[in-house]
This record gives sequence, C-alpha cells and structure tokens, in this order.
Amino acid sequence: MTIDQQLEYLRRGFVEIIPEDELEQRLIAARKEGRPLRVKAGFDPTAPDIHLGHTVVIRKLRHFQECGHTVIFVVGAATALIGDPSGRGATRPPLTREEVEANAETYKQQAFKILDPQKTELRFNNEWLMPLRYEDLMRLASRYTVARMLERDDFSKRYHAGRPISIHELLYPLVQAYDSVAIQADVELGGTDQKFNLLVGREIQRDYGQAPQIIATTPLLEGLDGAQKMSKSLDNYIGVTEPPEVMYRKVMQISDELMFRYYELLTGMSMPEIDSLKADIEAGSRHPMQAKRDLALRIVSDYHSLEDAGRAAAVFRKVVQERQAPDDMPVHDLPESIHGDSVIRIDKLLRAIGLCISGAEANRKLKEGAVSINGKKHRAMSFEVADGLSELTMQVGKKWARVKL
Amino acid sequence: MTIDQQLEYLRRGFVEIIPEDELEQRLIAARKEGRPLRVKAGFDPTAPDIHLGHTVVIRKLRHFQECGHTVIFVVGAATALIGDPSGRGATRPPLTREEVEANAETYKQQAFKILDPQKTELRFNNEWLMPLRYEDLMRLASRYTVARMLERDDFSKRYHAGRPISIHELLYPLVQAYDSVAIQADVELGGTDQKFNLLVGREIQRDYGQAPQIIATTPLLEGLDGAQKMSKSLDNYIGVTEPPEVMYRKVMQISDELMFRYYELLTGMSMPEIDSLKADIEAGSRHPMQAKRDLALRIVSDYHSLEDAGRAAAVFRKVVQERQAPDDMPVHDLPESIHGDSVIRIDKLLRAIGLCISGAEANRKLKEGAVSINGKKHRAMSFEVADGLSELTMQVGKKWARVKL
Repeated sequence: MTIDQQLEYLRRGFVEIIPEDELEQRLIAARKEGRPLRVKAGFDPTAPDIHLGHTVVIRKLRHFQECGHTVIFVVGAATALIGDPSGRGATRPPLTREEVEANAETYKQQAFKILDPQKTELRFNNEWLMPLRYEDLMRLASRYTVARMLERDDFSKRYHAGRPISIHELLYPLVQAYDSVAIQADVELGGTDQKFNLLVGREIQRDYGQAPQIIATTPLLEGLDGAQKMSKSLDNYIGVTEPPEVMYRKVMQISDELMFRYYELLTGMSMPEIDSLKADIEAGSRHPMQAKRDLALRIVSDYHSLEDAGRAAAVFRKVVQERQAPDDMPVHDLPESIHGDSVIRIDKLLRAIGLCISGAEANRKLKEGAVSINGKKHRAMSFEVADGLSELTMQVGKKWARVKL
Repeated sequence: MTIDQQLEYLRRGFVEIIPEDELEQRLIAARKEGRPLRVKAGFDPTAPDIHLGHTVVIRKLRHFQECGHTVIFVVGAATALIGDPSGRGATRPPLTREEVEANAETYKQQAFKILDPQKTELRFNNEWLMPLRYEDLMRLASRYTVARMLERDDFSKRYHAGRPISIHELLYPLVQAYDSVAIQADVELGGTDQKFNLLVGREIQRDYGQAPQIIATTPLLEGLDGAQKMSKSLDNYIGVTEPPEVMYRKVMQISDELMFRYYELLTGMSMPEIDSLKADIEAGSRHPMQAKRDLALRIVSDYHSLEDAGRAAAVFRKVVQERQAPDDMPVHDLPESIHGDSVIRIDKLLRAIGLCISGAEANRKLKEGAVSINGKKHRAMSFEVADGLSELTMQVGKKWARVKL
C-alpha cells in the first residue's frame, strides 16, 4: 500500500488525530527506516470481558495491522490496580490482584478475536510498572503539576464539587503515559475520553528522550440504551464472548437511530453505504427491522460464525413469536366471584378463565415465572389494580386471554 | 524520674503537643510494658550543615534521652530527593544523590554534638523508602485526597497564586509519614512548620495498623536578621560546625531582642532566669553587650569547648577594637593637587596625606582590600564623592585619617 492509500484507510473513523499532519511524516520516516510503526492501545482489565465498546479501537488497531504495522496491545494489569479515573465521578473501587490477573487472561483471548496474533505484541504493563521503585516514580511524578492535572475535565468537576480525588488517581495518567515510553509507541489509539491521558503520553515520552507519539481518538460507542457510553458497570453492553443468541437479542433491542451508529462503528460498511441504507428505509423500500436483523447477523458472525448467527436469528424469531400476543385471544369479563376490592387473586382468576385447570396449577405457574400480566412477568399471588386500568392481558406459557375489569 | 517529673521536663518549650493528654498515657503505657518511648525527628540533608535552627528540636530530643527514651534520628536521604515543600513558595531544586549522601554524612556527625549516641538510633530513610515499589507507593498515595493535601497552607497559597506544584511534592508528606510507620514512632518532634506533615504521620500510622504517634512542635528559630526563619538558603544562620570565631561573631551581631529568644531556645536557661536577666538589663544593672557576650560564650562552648569560646571572644574584641576609628586621628584638608571634579584618585590622596609612602604602595593596599573609606572596604582606584558628603574617614590597616572635602 502506498503512503496515501494507508493514510486514507487509517484516518477513517477517528475523531481527532494529534498532530494531524505528523501521521503522514511518521509513516514516511518509518518506511525509510524499513520498520513498521509501533501502534499502542491500552486496556485496563477492570471487568472480565471486552465488549463492543472496546472493539471500536481494536478494529482501528486491526486496520494498522492490515497496513503492515505492529500493534502493541497493552493489558493494564498494573494500572488497573489504580483504576483509570477518566470520566469517573468517584474513585474506582480497587480490584484485587487475583481479579486483575483473571480479567487480564480473558482480555488476551478476546482481543485476538479481532487482532492478527502475528502482528500483535501482547504486553502486560506490570512487566515495566511493577519494577518501578521510589526514585523512578518520584521522577515520573515530578514531570507534571497538580494544577495542570486538575484541569482535566473529570478531575476538575470532582474537585470543584468537593468530591474526593485520591492522590494515587493523579498518578494514573503519568503511569499509563510511561507505558508509551516502555514500549516506544509511535502512535497511540484510544476513545475520546482518553484524550488527556494520551496527550500526557506525548509529554512524558519527550521527557524521557523519545519522539512524542501521535495520538488518535475514536468515538465512544453508546450502550444499548443509546444514551450513555457502553460499559459493563452500566449493564448496557454486548460482550464479545456472549453467546450468539444473547448478542443477537441485544442488538435487536437497540433503537433504529442507534442501529446506524453501530453500523458505522462496528462493521466495515462505509459511510456512503450506510447513507444509502438510511435512504432506503426512509423511502420505505426497506424495513428497519430487516436492517437490524442484518446488523445483528454481521455482529454475531464477527465473534462467532455465520452458522451460529443464523441459529441465533431463528431462536430470536421463535421467542418473539411466542411473546407476541395473538390477535384472536379470548375475552372475559372479570368473574363475579372475584369482584370485591382493587386487589385480584390471580390464582383464582386463572382457574376461572380457564388458563389453568386448578388453583394448584396456577400457583405453580406463578412460582415458575410462567405468568405474565400486561406483558410483564408476575409472580405474586395477588395483583393490585391501578386506577384507570380497564383490561388485563393474561399469559400463561403459550395460552393468552383478555379480562375486562 | 517519675512520670510527672518527666512530663514537666518534656513538655517545656513546645508550641503544641497533639493530643495534649496522650503523652502522659503513652509514658504510663511504655513504663508498664518496660520499654522506652520511640521518639522520632527527621531532617532532610538538603544542605551540608546542621545550624542552630535545627538544634531547637535536637535539644528536645536530648531531653527525651535524658528521661531514658530512645531517639530515632531520621536522616531524610530519600525524602531529600523530593524536597520538603513545607513553607516553600516554589518547588525545591532537586539535589543529586551524591550531594544528598555527602550531606547525610555530615548531618550524622553534627547531630551527635547534642545527642547521646548510646540512646540514638541513627537511620537513613532510604533504608525503607528506596525499596518501595509501584504497589507500595500506590497504596500509600491512595490514603490521602488531593483536596485535603491542598488545604495545607503553603500548597494552598501556591495553588491559588497559580504557582506550580509538582505532583511529586504532594507525595512528600505521605512518604515522610511512612517513616513513622517504618520506625514505629511513639512521638514525633518537629518545628511548627512541620505540623501538617507530622499530623499526616498520625493518619498513615493508623492506616497501617499502628497506634498514631503523638506530635510535638517547637518554635521556629529566627535567623540573625531577627525576621525570617533561620535557614541556609537565606544566609542568616549559624552552623554547628562553624569555627568558634565565626559563631561568636555571628551571635554578637544579633539584636538585643533576638538575644533573649536565643537564650530561650538555644540554652538551658529557664524562663524565670531569662526574665530576671531582662529585668537587670532594663534596670541598668547589667550591660546588654555583656549579656550577649555570655550568650555567645555559652553557644560556642556547646559546639566547641569553653577554651575555644574564650579564644573566640579575645579575637572578637581585637577585631572590633581595630575596626573602631580612634578619637584622635589626624585631620587633613583635601590637597589642592587633587581638587578638580567630584572623582578623587585614592592612590594620590593616600600618598598626599601620608597613609602610604608611595602611589605604588597605595595601589597594592587597594588591591589587597586593606583600604576603607567611611567604614567601607574600597578597592577601586578612584572614589566618586556623593552630593553633600563633607568628610572622608580613611583607614589603611591600623592607620587612620580624616579628610575634609
């Protein structure tokens, strides 16, 4: 690939490249020296799984590999002991060493679902951080002022709101910057929330006599809620090791708007292709549900197989059909015997309208979680009728009925 | 000594003891356990010499030794690499390891001019700080918040004035607090400017499962100027290894007011004795110069011998007499040959009035620094007469003359 071709491919999908023009110069210089660029990304193993949010950066790493460069995938086993304060409103709870080590192992396996192992240096930053001693750390800590560190958006907010920031949190950006020194990074990639950290990397490399890395930031992937950044702790994520059916189902639950975002950040589809898909849907020549099924199929195939994805699609269809209320379900009035106050005995009702053959069966079904009222699972013996409610849609397994109140 | 006797002796001369009542309890507990208290003071060897400012604390350490307790004299060889930010308006320039080691060696020798070596543990804090690694330091740094550290008076002032504070400076109080953990201090002494650091020691000991030390602060000794704290960098100090004549001369130059302060903080003289001395001077029954000579004699004797002190006093007297202009010196008019403009050729003048036998001798005396004009050493060939000056008092060695302009 020519430098121009590389540039066009590599630049795609970044929010910022700093300094913008140095990427080209560094590519030219590396080619002259006959060496690949060293492209770093760091991930702290604070949770056992990589989720699709992480893959936005990892996909870009893959692009660098496709252009012949070396990726250094840094597992932040030592930084995870501090906890990256980026974008956090409070100090992270510390992980134990055992947790970090277990998580680090799964990160390694999961990263190779996307990266080419032949062109990846997988490094754990405890390799160079754990041996750092008093003098090394003091030297590092002397390179940055408190005021400049507190200018960082999240620190600034916490400081001015009077929320505690532990002193070790100020060391986080310096220590992760030292990773760039240790691995001699030419380029570092990270989400936009990592911009401050990546910039500190440039400064610290300069302090240690290295050419400062070029930094490139990727957009943050919204979680399933479409509002907040995808994250394990917000439980709005899709993990790359989740079973095919779970991944498929989670993709199917996102909004149409978010679907286009996921197409952009999680598939190889180009922006013109995505725009044309969007136009087709708006023109009514394509159903959004179909586009979402295609997306789910692509994503599940990436982390499992096309076959697995097909199976997941079939399972999803079946479940959805089962869940969908039929148009022709029987309609009942609330039996006289159950009238009384606003609290209805569900076991009696189920027997009265014939969804269960006895109170005992109704009881069992309630306990099993097989009973739904107005689309929501219901386990209690009684049901309190809210003001204004005029009808109950009752479901027990595949049997449905409507009850007028 | 009984506990009460110890308390009376030990409490004397401190500005604060925190918590006030715990010293008694700790003395009782230690006696029950049949062990001496472990009394810490730390000194960073940022300059090669201990000066009288340091001895205020060291004298109190000595008092604890006299009561049978163990003094741990901590030479801050590792903390000196950071530089104590206490009371400083700016980051200290870093010392090299060689400078710190050389200074540490002299500190050790000088401390034993006051302390009883048999009851002193002399410890260099690099013993336990240098082996600290990444995890240890992160653990330590996690124990304190940025906001609480920035509440410290000097940090607060610098922060709000926009003067830089390096992140490693925030680690200083924590690292020196860790000294207390390492040596298991019962009590720590320091100047009032160390109060914050000493209090951090209490907290960190608690975090590491130790009973928090009692802290006791001594007043800060004013330097020779009577205004600022005695310090090497302000050049207003008396070093404990300075030659007897230098020490004697420096004491003689302080103000009468400062003399009483030095009596209080640098001698064993009790407050009632000092008050009675002050009364005698006010009543005119004692000359302040005599009281100052006594003080100088006491101080020089402490760090040299009484004999040395006597010799220093004799030298001082001689020099002062030599410097004093005699009442009966010859008076000359400015010779006609020298009249002209406002600039006088001193070599010509000295020959003309007979203080030198030739222009060549005058020249040599000027170069040697043997010539004074109006009490100030003068080395230049010419002298510019300031407006309104009506007379020159000329001195060459022991020869004096007045010249009317």
